[in-house]
Formats: sequence, C-alpha cells, structure tokens
Amino acid sequence: MISLADQKRRIEQGKLTPEGALAESLAAIDKHEADIKAFVTRAKNPKAQAQGPLAGIAVGIKDIIDTADLPTEMGAPSIYKGNQPRADAPIVMQLKLAGATVAGKTTTTAFAANDPTPTLNPRNRAHTPGGSSSGSAAAVGAGMLPLAVGTQTGGSVIRPASFCGVAAIKPSYRLLPPVGVKCFSWTLDTVGLFAAGVEDVAIALSVITGRSELNAAEMTSPRIGVVTQDFAGPPEAGGAEALQHAARAAAKAGASVRELKMPDIVAEAWKIHNVVQQFEAHQAFAWEYRQNYDIFPPMLRRRMDDSRQYTAADYDAARIVAVKARAALSEIFKDIDVLLALSAPGVPPKGLDSTGDPRYNALWTLMGTPCVNVPAYIADGNLPVGVQTIADYGDDAKAIAAARFMERALKS
Amino acid sequence: MISLADQKRRIEQGKLTPEGALAESLAAIDKHEADIKAFVTRAKNPKAQAQGPLAGIAVGIKDIIDTADLPTEMGAPSIYKGNQPRADAPIVMQLKLAGATVAGKTTTTAFAANDPTPTLNPRNRAHTPGGSSSGSAAAVGAGMLPLAVGTQTGGSVIRPASFCGVAAIKPSYRLLPPVGVKCFSWTLDTVGLFAAGVEDVAIALSVITGRSELNAAEMTSPRIGVVTQDFAGPPEAGGAEALQHAARAAAKAGASVRELKMPDIVAEAWKIHNVVQQFEAHQAFAWEYRQNYDIFPPMLRRRMDDSRQYTAADYDAARIVAVKARAALSEIFKDIDVLLALSAPGVPPKGLDSTGDPRYNALWTLMGTPCVNVPAYIADGNLPVGVQTIADYGDDAKAIAAARFMERALKS
Repeated sequence: MISLADQKRRIEQGKLTPEGALAESLAAIDKHEADIKAFVTRAKNPKAQAQGPLAGIAVGIKDIIDTADLPTEMGAPSIYKGNQPRADAPIVMQLKLAGATVAGKTTTTAFAANDPTPTLNPRNRAHTPGGSSSGSAAAVGAGMLPLAVGTQTGGSVIRPASFCGVAAIKPSYRLLPPVGVKCFSWTLDTVGLFAAGVEDVAIALSVITGRSELNAAEMTSPRIGVVTQDFAGPPEAGGAEALQHAARAAAKAGASVRELKMPDIVAEAWKIHNVVQQFEAHQAFAWEYRQNYDIFPPMLRRRMDDSRQYTAADYDAARIVAVKARAALSEIFKDIDVLLALSAPGVPPKGLDSTGDPRYNALWTLMGTPCVNVPAYIADGNLPVGVQTIADYGDDAKAIAAARFMERALKS
Repeated sequence: MISLADQKRRIEQGKLTPEGALAESLAAIDKHEADIKAFVTRAKNPKAQAQGPLAGIAVGIKDIIDTADLPTEMGAPSIYKGNQPRADAPIVMQLKLAGATVAGKTTTTAFAANDPTPTLNPRNRAHTPGGSSSGSAAAVGAGMLPLAVGTQTGGSVIRPASFCGVAAIKPSYRLLPPVGVKCFSWTLDTVGLFAAGVEDVAIALSVITGRSELNAAEMTSPRIGVVTQDFAGPPEAGGAEALQHAARAAAKAGASVRELKMPDIVAEAWKIHNVVQQFEAHQAFAWEYRQNYDIFPPMLRRRMDDSRQYTAADYDAARIVAVKARAALSEIFKDIDVLLALSAPGVPPKGLDSTGDPRYNALWTLMGTPCVNVPAYIADGNLPVGVQTIADYGDDAKAIAAARFMERALKS
C-alpha cells in the first residue's frame, strides 16, 4: 500500500517531489485498476500542487460526493448518468486546499446503499470489498491511492476497511462536512477517510480539519472496554478469533482490557437504527424513488418498498431512544478510554452479490462516535478482519491514539 | 392574501376545482408580479393535480432549493446562472406528493445570506420585504401565492414574514428535510413555510409531514413568557409598541402572561450564533468563495472575509455553549407553554440596501425551537411588525396552537 505519511516524509526530506509522489499513485492505478475496478471516472491529466501539507497526495472521492470537474453518478447511472455538479463538495475543497490532487471518483453502491459495484477485493478477488464505499477501500487496499474519501450511514466506511485490510476513520458526526454529498439519512450520513495505516488517516484528518490534535501520538496503556456486540448477533467465522486476538495483543502491549456489556438502552438503539435511516431515506430519495421507480436500483428499491410502514411516531420514538443511548454511552467513557469491537462480523463474504452485513457498525453511526478500523487478523484465504476503536463523541483524537496503540500491538 | 385553508375548504365543498384554485393564484401572479418582483422563474404551464390535500394550491420555492424542472440559481447568477439540478429536493417532492403545484422559484438573497434581491415589500414598496426568503414572503404578502417555502439560518423566515405581514413557521430543526437545499450552515439551516394565516401554515406543515397533530386547534389560556430579547439589544421604532400590544392582547384574551428573563447561558448562546454560522459557512461555501472569489456576491464576501479568524477551538466552544443553552431553555418550558417575542426589531427598514437585522431570530435558530410569526401591529406607513410564539424543541404543535390564540387575540 502507499503510505501517505511516508510520501509526505520523503517530500519533506527532499527525496521526492509532489509530482513524483503523484506519479507513484498514477502508475499504481494504471497497473491495478483493470483488475480491481475501483474507479468510476479517472481525472484527466491530474497535476500535483506545489504547496500544502498534502501536496502530491492522490485522493479518491466516492462517487456520491459532488465534484466540479468530474461527473457524480451516485452509483446509479440509470438515474444520474453524466450528472455534472457545478461545485466541489466542501470535503473535496478541503482536500484541494490542503494540497491534495483528486485522482478520480471511486465506486459506490447505488446511493451508498445496497446494490453492489463491480469492484473486487484486493486481498482476494473472489470476495466483496464491502460497501458502500467499495472503490475507496479497494483503491487504498490495492496500493493505488494513499488516501480516499467514503461515507457511512450504516457501516459503509468501517466495514469495507475491515474487508480490504486498510485503516479508516468514521469521525464524529459532522466533523467532516456532510455537504455536497448525496443524502441517505441526515441523522446518520458521516464522511470518513481511508488510508494505509492509522498515522496516514490521522495526518489527513488533521490537516483537512485544521485540528493538529487529531494527528495524535500513540496512547500508552489505554483503558479498553471490549464489546462483543452480542445485541447485534454473534460473530461469523474469523470474527471471534480476530476480536480475541486483538484483545490479547492489547493486554500484552500494556493496555488495561476488560469486557464491557452495553446498557440496555444502547442495545435498544441498535435496533432502531433502521427506523431512523429508512424514515429519512424515504424523504431523501423521494425524487428518485417516486419519480424514477422503474429504473431505481433494485436492491435499494426492495429495501424502500419494505420500509414504507414507518410512521412519524415510530421515527420520533426512535430518536428519543437514540438521544438516551448517546447519554448512556457517554457515561461509559468516564471509566475507559475507548471501546474495542469487531469492525465486521467476520471475513469478507464470497462473491459480489452482497457487500456484507453492517450489523456491527450501525449502532456507532447512530451514536455519532468516532470509530477507527485497524486490520487485526488474516483468516484463511488472505481474508482480513478488522477491529475498531471507538471513543466518545467529539474525542476523535483518543480514538486515533488508541488505534495507533492497537496497530502496534497487533504488529508486534 | 390567498388563504390556503379557504381554498381547500371551497374545493372540499365543491365550490372550487383544483384547477380553479390554481387559476386564482396564477391570475394574481400575473397581476402583481411586475410590481413586486418575487419570482426568479415561473413554472411553464403549471397544472393542478386532481388529488391530494394540497390539490390546487400554488406554492413558491425559494431559489436555493433544488427543482428538477426549473433552474436553481441560489440568488447568485454570477456563479450559478442556468444551474439545473437533476432532482427535486425532498421538500419539493413532499409538496408535490401532497397535491400542490410549484408555481415558480422565489427570490433569495445570494446564498440565503446578505446581498438583497429586487423584491419589494407588498405592504409598502419603499421598504425591504426582508430576507433571505424575500420572494416567498413577498409573494404570500402580495396575495400571489397561498403557500411558499423559505429557509432560516439567521432570521430568514420569521423576519421577512414580520416585514411582509404574513404568517410563517420556522419548524423545529430538521422537521422539514434540509436536503437539496444550498447549505449555509448545517447546524442552523432550517426549512420553513409562509402562508396567509396560522391555520394555513398549520395545514400545510401537517400534510407535508404526515403529522396530523400539527394542524393544531387554538390553545385556550396559554401560559406565555414574554421575552424582550434585551441581550440582543433594544427594539427599534414600532417594535416596543408591537410587543406591548401583543402581550396586552394575549392577557385580555385569557392568557397568563409574564415577562421572562433568559438564563445567562441562553444570552451567551445568542452571541456565538455567528461563530457557528460562519465557521460552517467557510466550509459550505468553500468552492464558491475560494474558486470564484472575484464574482462572489459582495456583501456575503465581506462577511466571509471578516470571519476568517474563527478557529476550530472557537467553533467547539460555541457548540458547547449551544448545547448548554438548549438544555437551559428546555427547562423554562416546564413552566410555560410558549415564549412570545418580537419577530424583528421593528418595522421593515426603508430601501432595498439591506434586508434588515436578524438579531431577534438568530438565537432561536441556534436553539432549534419552533417559531411561528403572527402579524401583530401596523406602524405608520402601513409597516407591519410581527411577534413570534416559540415552543420547546419538537413541540411545533404547541407553537402553532399558541400562534392561533395570538392571531385571534390580536384581531379582536
């Protein structure tokens, strides 16, 4: 994989120019893209910027995010073929202002929901790369890009990161601006980042947001609460081993590790994520679903058909549960630094019919808490499983610092 | 003015067809638009729908809201001339699904901020109609439309409603979906509605959201806390009289009325509205402001230039104040039903150089509370001043029920 931190260091040491760094990424894309199919559109004649903390860094933008120079087809060309926004989304401008170069638009499941893309998993091409941010995760995993942008409404950043064996952050809700991004659910949609390792993610998030504290050093002796997420069902093959392996590695590296059961209200919140998401989705996708029903992406259409029964009262009740659960969860962080949980139930499923199950992600999206994926375990078939460090809302620096700890613990 | 409730009743009684209702609005637009200049674009051959609770109701859509059939120029044709979104925004779809007919796009200050439109105040054409939802307020005030959609980030729904002498609601934050609407500040942007009277607003909001309780009957003997908003400075000419007049009318009509001082934290929240708004605006308008600086609307550009100093730390501190203030304000609503406050410091200012001062609105936008404007007083020169009923977050039905009480109290 291409490390953003490494490219940046070489540029700072005068061993690499921004043009040279960008050329490394473009050459890698030329080499791997035909196999992996991570891009919807590639930028024409991308140029490195001379200045900026991300000068020379090639970035991929999930194709539900507006770009002024490239079409934005939402993973739904049946409806959005050739759609050309006038403006760049704020996250795209933040990257450009930091010096990065947009290398292209990466594949997304239709409207960042269910219908899969043709993208293959770079670790094992017979398996899904996950979704909805399929192309961003796969492009980083295949060593084509040092940085890519995705979004998570259910589990669309952390799960594909787990499946592709890359680092990623789903930051606190709205730390990165959710603007110029096709809306699925305004309560849930969260912009996130993929990169080779946690330091790479941390540098990018830090310079994009102008928050230097987010480039956090590794935490020493973190207090870790392991969450098995049994409220969301048991793990699959590879999952249980991965979590045990990560917890043991953490303890061995000096963390204080104990298993934590979530309060009932938090488990209840997991159950109502879908009510919030789908009630809002029926509004957010109203034009597409109601005016373009026949050409609406079929898997998402079925999901929309199956969720028409939710009423405003259901939605209000769900939001009250979410508010209570956020408060209860915040209490837990008084005694621990981070939670540690599986990023996905197990290894990436075989085939491209499904992008996998977001059941170990949906709660944390609803809670708005920062989550950082760390590759933890490689199961048979070169199939990765990740764990996520989860900190209190707004404490992204702690989630990152603990993820750096976990990353080292898992390597040693 | 054209009353939505009256048109709806006549249709239900068989005295009017939806086509006839729509024709009334279209004829009124033909008659007054040349004088008032409330529209950016008119729909070509608008047709009434046969079915739906808003069949025959003509609606105006503020031109920062996406429409699939009409351009959306954001009040900034220098940058967005001819911009044609692919989709209708959710609020537009909700209106169409309820049976309404889009009559056109209404004028907005550039990006719903400062730079005024050519729209005149229908009560006195030498004065501003207010902004940023200038065209929506003026079109309803001039009797051209029974319903119009606006947005409020500072005071852009309630203030123009006050200036144009119409009813309006800024609902609880995100009750109406803030999607497909040009973003100014994602923490603040709120979609709202204008109509002739409070019942008209209530019916529209109720059918759009599928929440029948929002078509609330008049409240009897409400407990009203009068807020002078002295933390935001004293009222102007017309303002002080209007609030006293409204408070006296409420007491005479049977309300329990007392003056309430806001807790210090709430007054502090008023001060930091601008930090939240401008810190987010620099992200939301990044493409327009950074890539199109020379053609960026000049008054908003000055405001952007003057707010570049806000840091992430300033923003975080401001958001903490806002959270505390929301909690403190919510406590107040345990003892009263609604707050009553001026909707604007006074009468609409003379001329079109400014759309007036949002200082009596910004706090309530930041608090996310529902606010309903009720025309309260006519000062010399036929210049209206409104008062707003303000309820706890999520209690839009109570804000409406109390506004209906105030409307009757002020008429009798």
